[in-house]
Amino acid sequence: MNNYRIDNLQYCNWSKEIFKINNEAKLDAVHVTIAYHEDFNEVKKNIEVWNKYFKDNKNLIFHGKTFKDIEKAHQEKKTAIFFGFQNCSPIEDDIGLVEKVYDLGARFMQLTYNNQSLLATGCYEKNDSGVTRMGKEAIKEMNRLGLVVDMSHSAEKSTFDAIKLSSKPIAITHANPSFWFGAKRNKSNELLKALADSKGMLGLSLYPHHLKDTSNCTLESFCEMAAKTVELMGVKQVGIGSDLCIGHPNSVVEWMRNGTWTKTKDYGEGSSKNPNFPKQPKWFEDARGFKNLEQGLKKVGFQETEVNDILGNNWYNFYRGINN
Amino acid sequence: MNNYRIDNLQYCNWSKEIFKINNEAKLDAVHVTIAYHEDFNEVKKNIEVWNKYFKDNKNLIFHGKTFKDIEKAHQEKKTAIFFGFQNCSPIEDDIGLVEKVYDLGARFMQLTYNNQSLLATGCYEKNDSGVTRMGKEAIKEMNRLGLVVDMSHSAEKSTFDAIKLSSKPIAITHANPSFWFGAKRNKSNELLKALADSKGMLGLSLYPHHLKDTSNCTLESFCEMAAKTVELMGVKQVGIGSDLCIGHPNSVVEWMRNGTWTKTKDYGEGSSKNPNFPKQPKWFEDARGFKNLEQGLKKVGFQETEVNDILGNNWYNFYRGINN
Repeated sequence: MNNYRIDNLQYCNWSKEIFKINNEAKLDAVHVTIAYHEDFNEVKKNIEVWNKYFKDNKNLIFHGKTFKDIEKAHQEKKTAIFFGFQNCSPIEDDIGLVEKVYDLGARFMQLTYNNQSLLATGCYEKNDSGVTRMGKEAIKEMNRLGLVVDMSHSAEKSTFDAIKLSSKPIAITHANPSFWFGAKRNKSNELLKALADSKGMLGLSLYPHHLKDTSNCTLESFCEMAAKTVELMGVKQVGIGSDLCIGHPNSVVEWMRNGTWTKTKDYGEGSSKNPNFPKQPKWFEDARGFKNLEQGLKKVGFQETEVNDILGNNWYNFYRGINN
Repeated sequence: MNNYRIDNLQYCNWSKEIFKINNEAKLDAVHVTIAYHEDFNEVKKNIEVWNKYFKDNKNLIFHGKTFKDIEKAHQEKKTAIFFGFQNCSPIEDDIGLVEKVYDLGARFMQLTYNNQSLLATGCYEKNDSGVTRMGKEAIKEMNRLGLVVDMSHSAEKSTFDAIKLSSKPIAITHANPSFWFGAKRNKSNELLKALADSKGMLGLSLYPHHLKDTSNCTLESFCEMAAKTVELMGVKQVGIGSDLCIGHPNSVVEWMRNGTWTKTKDYGEGSSKNPNFPKQPKWFEDARGFKNLEQGLKKVGFQETEVNDILGNNWYNFYRGINN
């Protein structure tokens, strides 16, 4: 088997420069976020923008739909772009839209983005009632089609529910274990264990608000965390979902946090004193940091095959299972 | 003061005949449902339909916006029609739409319709996480504008939360006490007590699924229930919200229950053996049953002023408070 490199979450201010960087980093596939708060019609507009990216950057990227596109990208030295949503807003209140977003190419959908949704509870809510009546219907439909349930921004009971209800493995595409850093977005050992037991995947995040010592997090600390996570979950259930959000003005993180749900200002993982996009750690300023991860993971004791598992092969295998 | 007659919830298959019946019943005001699952644009279309009703039935009805329209209706022997939503779907995920629906004339909005919404938990969900982050924002905005929080179809903790969070009295426009009949939609004594203590209103429902012995419920049993409810809540906090749904084909109740949230069929308060709109009790086949209620309430011991309170004056006073 080839060794694949996959970053299973990026939301950058897309440009030829960034596609080149991902290419230089040898990424065969990137799962990109194309919706935070958008409804169905707004998603269609975002896809039109992506269609222009694909047209203008034919030599660098193309729209990925199955694991075969990862193989194709590897062969052609391009990056397959997989669409995903960090919210269920694109399906609005209509179960029929699950199939429509799948047909548009969506392959991952979070049931919630921080707040309560129609499907489940987000990690910023005070109480977590779990997967809702409509959530159960949506999971069934997502399973039927091959739209992966992503619980990165969901609350704990909701995530346990999703693991149990989903007939296919789910993903937490971008988060870290809370044993390492107690951010609201990070996940408990019990949850990660249940995720691994169900053959679900965790994508380790490089977003500073999820990192111990945030922007000053060291490569060594990150890789030691990866080693402990592998002890907990097994080496086959851990990958990377960097959550890279580079090149954006700070108005974008404000929009991500506030959407249109509040008239007051919510600072999400930031604070009124620290409202902006955080600075990436030096060793992961962009996807070329995969090279540093490779070295760092070896340094903490991983074998080469294990490094390749974590940096892409595990996600590749997960994609292989999506339509089974 | 005049004695007003108000039915604070109807959802009929509107026609000149029904407006005439309401007029014959001397109803000065009716709160009508104009949304169950509709989004903002769909609500605007429903209002266009209502504008045609107003134009074609000028001698019977007009669009009510404040308590003064109840007085005007009484004087002119017409019925003031107040718009309300049984769901928060019309504000979608946009706090800015609260003001827009208020400007369109909406005066009541349920935070949920049976299922979990973005604002709170519905009474058919297994778990109730209470009013959400967006729900808190929405209540603030509804209070500012004078859009009444209606918790008729909400779960218990969510309703307690709404009572506490709302700076203005809230309403349960159409439900009965569960001490009388244990339907999911009916309310506990503790909740009704908290509602009354906060000067909120309960509109007693005449919808058979909320009645003891459903379609065979007797007028006497209903009026005895009203007397016990008044013992619990005080005579000033109880009114009528008949939940009359007359003249509809059964496809409408199927749509009310299922909207677009499920691919399987949900029977709501009905069952697969009993899926249709239930038959109204003989003594309340339409709003002319207010006459029977008047007699029935007197018969169980209410004084005339108390009967007038329950059949309309309490709701009139509640409307007086909406914009204070």
